[in-house]
Amino acid sequence: MNRIDRLRETLEEPLLVTSETNVRYLCGFESSNAALLVEPGGARLFTDFRYIDSAREVPGVEAVETKRNTIAWLAEHLSGRIAFEAHILPITYVDALRAGGLDLVQRVGLVERLRAVKDEEELATLRRACAITDRVLERLTSEVSFVGRREVDVAWDLTCLYHDEGAKSEAFEAIVGSGPTGSGPHARAGERVIQAGELVVVDTGCTVDGYSSDYTRTFATGELDGEMREAYDTVLAAQLAALDTIRAGVTGVEADAAARSVIEASPFAGLFGHGLGHGLGLDVHEAPRLSTESADTLEPGNVVTVEPGVYVSGRFGVRIEDDVVVTAEGLENLTGFTKELTVVA
Amino acid sequence: MNRIDRLRETLEEPLLVTSETNVRYLCGFESSNAALLVEPGGARLFTDFRYIDSAREVPGVEAVETKRNTIAWLAEHLSGRIAFEAHILPITYVDALRAGGLDLVQRVGLVERLRAVKDEEELATLRRACAITDRVLERLTSEVSFVGRREVDVAWDLTCLYHDEGAKSEAFEAIVGSGPTGSGPHARAGERVIQAGELVVVDTGCTVDGYSSDYTRTFATGELDGEMREAYDTVLAAQLAALDTIRAGVTGVEADAAARSVIEASPFAGLFGHGLGHGLGLDVHEAPRLSTESADTLEPGNVVTVEPGVYVSGRFGVRIEDDVVVTAEGLENLTGFTKELTVVA
Repeated sequence: MNRIDRLRETLEEPLLVTSETNVRYLCGFESSNAALLVEPGGARLFTDFRYIDSAREVPGVEAVETKRNTIAWLAEHLSGRIAFEAHILPITYVDALRAGGLDLVQRVGLVERLRAVKDEEELATLRRACAITDRVLERLTSEVSFVGRREVDVAWDLTCLYHDEGAKSEAFEAIVGSGPTGSGPHARAGERVIQAGELVVVDTGCTVDGYSSDYTRTFATGELDGEMREAYDTVLAAQLAALDTIRAGVTGVEADAAARSVIEASPFAGLFGHGLGHGLGLDVHEAPRLSTESADTLEPGNVVTVEPGVYVSGRFGVRIEDDVVVTAEGLENLTGFTKELTVVA
Repeated sequence: MNRIDRLRETLEEPLLVTSETNVRYLCGFESSNAALLVEPGGARLFTDFRYIDSAREVPGVEAVETKRNTIAWLAEHLSGRIAFEAHILPITYVDALRAGGLDLVQRVGLVERLRAVKDEEELATLRRACAITDRVLERLTSEVSFVGRREVDVAWDLTCLYHDEGAKSEAFEAIVGSGPTGSGPHARAGERVIQAGELVVVDTGCTVDGYSSDYTRTFATGELDGEMREAYDTVLAAQLAALDTIRAGVTGVEADAAARSVIEASPFAGLFGHGLGHGLGLDVHEAPRLSTESADTLEPGNVVTVEPGVYVSGRFGVRIEDDVVVTAEGLENLTGFTKELTVVA
């Protein structure tokens, strides 16, 4: 069954999909101005003159040209009872639709719920993104110099390696966090010159046909002191414990706890200052969430990151992150690159 | 007067700013989860534990740590009459704030109106982005081979030249549209191999400290046929006519008409299928708009693109785009690269 049909089965009334990513997911149409109305008998794809020619090539939908302000046009042309994505649509647009006489119903996250469970085509795309990331990390750690160069220089090497390996774009601006830079979980690559005997957090991914990989490895630039080595081993043990726990039926809280309990029982207690992971797909952060506050339970076909970390403020950070597919019995790990501590030069 | 003070002067009640870009504009704080409340006596910057340390370093605001769901936290902790950005905030968040007892007032575009008029610091940043883009185009046309290579290869050369010239990132995925590819105004660079005797539309820019340049030049790969040459001359005449018209007090419709009338009086009538230009700043597309449907009137300090084009479906496109600052008497053209037809090899 195609994605629009699967969505339709969950609907109590027609749904107007206005999230750019949700429209892309449902019918493959990429545009900064489009709305998809999924109705009992079919689906209509609304867009303006700039995109209408490509919209007409989308299979399984009826393309309808609107004026540039698509929502204002819909307010004039639609009628009856219609649901909309209440977590997406700003209130001025909601008011415009309501003023046009529509009987509006608020719905939240219906398409996101479908997106959380990947189909075979999506999994195949994610496997390609991960295979490229594996090769890029292999080459980064064997071909690239770290010591004596700036974090931004290593980040640029990553950009070039992705291009060389055929990824059209990076999924996000890579983090290259050496020494103290690595102690901020959202640090960017900066001007700092990487020293010998440090830890370097590298958080990177690429996008293939819209789907992103998102890995982290922490490398050593030579011999580490005992605390850094212990932090690495602790995070690795926590990550392996989480991988061991994850399977369909486990909650996001339980998965998080599997890793967190290892860190809390170590000298690094209290230093794992973020959640264990997040869903991965057309968005780099999507459902489900693995954290102490998660309300999600894992299902077969979820693709999630598993990324515990330890951050010793002002000194260093360690994070190890794989991308995995949840299955009934456990998981398929899409990440091939080694988690043995890799020494870079 | 700083930006928050200028905004405050326009307010009838405290304004809760939730647009990521508007928060950045007002106080320089970059975060995917922040809200700025501009009140009569000051400004409070709300964000979660991930960003609170950087928030505390922002001058002129009081940083307040919220839970991860900042809007839910605000619903619990704010009270009284407060305006919000109704064109930004999805209705579920509006409902949450209202359920918390707030007396909410819808406001639209207050910060965007300030952003449309650039201050000296912003102009200096935009001049830097444009100077880099000038150098990159000089090098692209003198150092890079076009004929016999794919559009994506030339796009990658652009990426490398920007890096080499010190731009941290491109403003958008560059368009390299050769021959028929160029006839779509939003074509991307693709697999097509560039031939001799063609037109190649190159639409590119870079981002410096958040502010973007956005240029287009159309190059010739050798001798052109008469129609292509005439299209180029027509678009150039249209672009010069628009530059000649633009000054404070001119409307977006009038500026557009200055270029459009030249094209409509030519053999390419009807083939200029988009507006003349758009504001440029922290967003690549912002206020004001120059088009047949624009409601804007130009003011000193507006920075806009001026980009007429002609698109001969399935054969070729021509677009010429400068970035200019509107002044009382006319404009300052930030784009230095030549508009004489440049032949590339």
